[in-house]
Amino acid sequence: MYTYRLVLLGFGAVGQGFARLLRDKADDLRVRYQFGAQIVGVYTRRASLFDPTGLDTSALLHAAQGGGLSAYPGSPKLRRDLDAAAMIAHPEADTLILATPTDLADPGPAVAQVKRAFQAGKNVITVNKAPIATAYPELSALAKDAGLFFGYEGVVMGGTPAVRLAQEALAGSRISEIRGVINGTTNYMLSRMEAGASYAEALAEAQAKGYAETDPTADVEGYDAAGKLIILIALLFGQTLRLDQMDCHGITEIGPQAIAEASAAGERWKLIASARLTDGKVEASVKPIRLPLSDPLAGVEGIMNAVTYVTEEMGGVTLTGAGAGGVPTGFAVLSDLLALHRKRLAGAG
Amino acid sequence: MYTYRLVLLGFGAVGQGFARLLRDKADDLRVRYQFGAQIVGVYTRRASLFDPTGLDTSALLHAAQGGGLSAYPGSPKLRRDLDAAAMIAHPEADTLILATPTDLADPGPAVAQVKRAFQAGKNVITVNKAPIATAYPELSALAKDAGLFFGYEGVVMGGTPAVRLAQEALAGSRISEIRGVINGTTNYMLSRMEAGASYAEALAEAQAKGYAETDPTADVEGYDAAGKLIILIALLFGQTLRLDQMDCHGITEIGPQAIAEASAAGERWKLIASARLTDGKVEASVKPIRLPLSDPLAGVEGIMNAVTYVTEEMGGVTLTGAGAGGVPTGFAVLSDLLALHRKRLAGAG
Repeated sequence: MYTYRLVLLGFGAVGQGFARLLRDKADDLRVRYQFGAQIVGVYTRRASLFDPTGLDTSALLHAAQGGGLSAYPGSPKLRRDLDAAAMIAHPEADTLILATPTDLADPGPAVAQVKRAFQAGKNVITVNKAPIATAYPELSALAKDAGLFFGYEGVVMGGTPAVRLAQEALAGSRISEIRGVINGTTNYMLSRMEAGASYAEALAEAQAKGYAETDPTADVEGYDAAGKLIILIALLFGQTLRLDQMDCHGITEIGPQAIAEASAAGERWKLIASARLTDGKVEASVKPIRLPLSDPLAGVEGIMNAVTYVTEEMGGVTLTGAGAGGVPTGFAVLSDLLALHRKRLAGAG
Repeated sequence: MYTYRLVLLGFGAVGQGFARLLRDKADDLRVRYQFGAQIVGVYTRRASLFDPTGLDTSALLHAAQGGGLSAYPGSPKLRRDLDAAAMIAHPEADTLILATPTDLADPGPAVAQVKRAFQAGKNVITVNKAPIATAYPELSALAKDAGLFFGYEGVVMGGTPAVRLAQEALAGSRISEIRGVINGTTNYMLSRMEAGASYAEALAEAQAKGYAETDPTADVEGYDAAGKLIILIALLFGQTLRLDQMDCHGITEIGPQAIAEASAAGERWKLIASARLTDGKVEASVKPIRLPLSDPLAGVEGIMNAVTYVTEEMGGVTLTGAGAGGVPTGFAVLSDLLALHRKRLAGAG
């Protein structure tokens, strides 16, 4: 039995989803894995809470869903004055959970927080995509040199374990190509258009359901998918690409006629993010493609996500699952913690 | 760098596929994972080869594809007189690869070999399904108590990492239901019948392509899928079921009219193996089901396999890939060895 002592930066949908899982599954995790975890610190833009004896998860969730974290009740050892840097390096914590919103236009602060944590001897689990998209090679080398754990399952496809599948379960194989349906919003819209909706209707429905933003540019122009593809390329091909280094087309030019033509040919339009590694060089693109129904990506419906890894040894291996959501992505954090725990147990054995 | 010293029992398609991967990827595996492996022993019904300095993989493959392993050339330390038991327990080997054919009617010998290996302090990787289908709880407890590795990725869906996905990548979640398309032969036949073939034509095609046996009973009556489901239940629900404890129907009653009716309703017939865990009780069945196209299993084509794990935290997670084949299943053995290696590295770190 080992109890991890966690500091959370950010406490939005993912942070809260994770806290809820930790609370509800505490007994189960102790019995099945001899695993325990305490949240000792939570830092958001509006509140700072630190208690070396452990914060009360239910009270945290209650405060976050009510008047905000500043309403968290006092206790003898509670401090409300630590800044993020002090919390990251605090000797009473061993693992940083970086659950702040991704800001790819300004990744510096998030990257600096990850570095600070490694320098202070802490493990890091990030669901913030910025450190992975912009500085993965450097950060993973830092973690390795310091003998620390670096987890990032939540940066792609929420809790669906696309990263661990590639890096652990397919270890030993050579992934030569990645192909994915990794933007739920556009996939939902394409599914609706197949059912007869116009582009405008499909977009309005996606917005009404909260899948698309008021300004849908990032989704419908393919930039969100491209950002996720950049992360997969960093993690699986070890290369840092920029958005301007790939072909990026969205779904804005797909209309009812294109949909009908595909359907008549027994095919389906999907917004496909793909990257191929040839002689150490990566070719990447995001664009709508007509897939035959025999392609496992053709069947991905609505807001589901899927990724196919093409390997030399086994052909294509496809993983399909939820691509987002607070609890699924919170589960990715828990999944990373359990991977850290497996390593610790192996080390003790 | 650590070099594993392997004894292979069985050297058919899977053993040879594994040996080929080991030979072709040796440099790559050394550079990427500081991993090495030597085959020190091979035992089949017709031949016994043991060389503590390592057998020559190319010569083994050459002999196996030519006149048989007994044609393997001599060398100073080569022995041809060891029986299986002596080879399993040999002090110059550290890991047993059990790649003998599965005999579910008589699982005793394979189970005994796994036990003997653990008693002698060896790691075990099995692609023989019998020990997992009939004695998984006992054998995994033996491995755990002895601090040894027990790998079995190859017993389900060939090299497609269905086991590692469930046991590692989804660790921390509760899998409440398993649903799979896990018999490639019947799935191929259903795909062909959708394309207009009759049942008899589809079967004849499957036989011509080598997907179906001359006596296709095990496939078309659902017994093969049921056997695989029993393994998934053992691994993921920890319970040992027998074939007579589940509903098992095949595809023999699916004709052109049923196919046409499903198609008209926008659905597809699939032979679905499913198991649900409710309050510690497992309900399992194999039967043809009409799936809506929105089900990720509906899109699984031809001889591909797929499995959906239904989890509380993330809904369904579906893995699709090749279900059989010498090289893919050989890859499962390599994948297990690399998992053993990750544990060893964590232990040394």
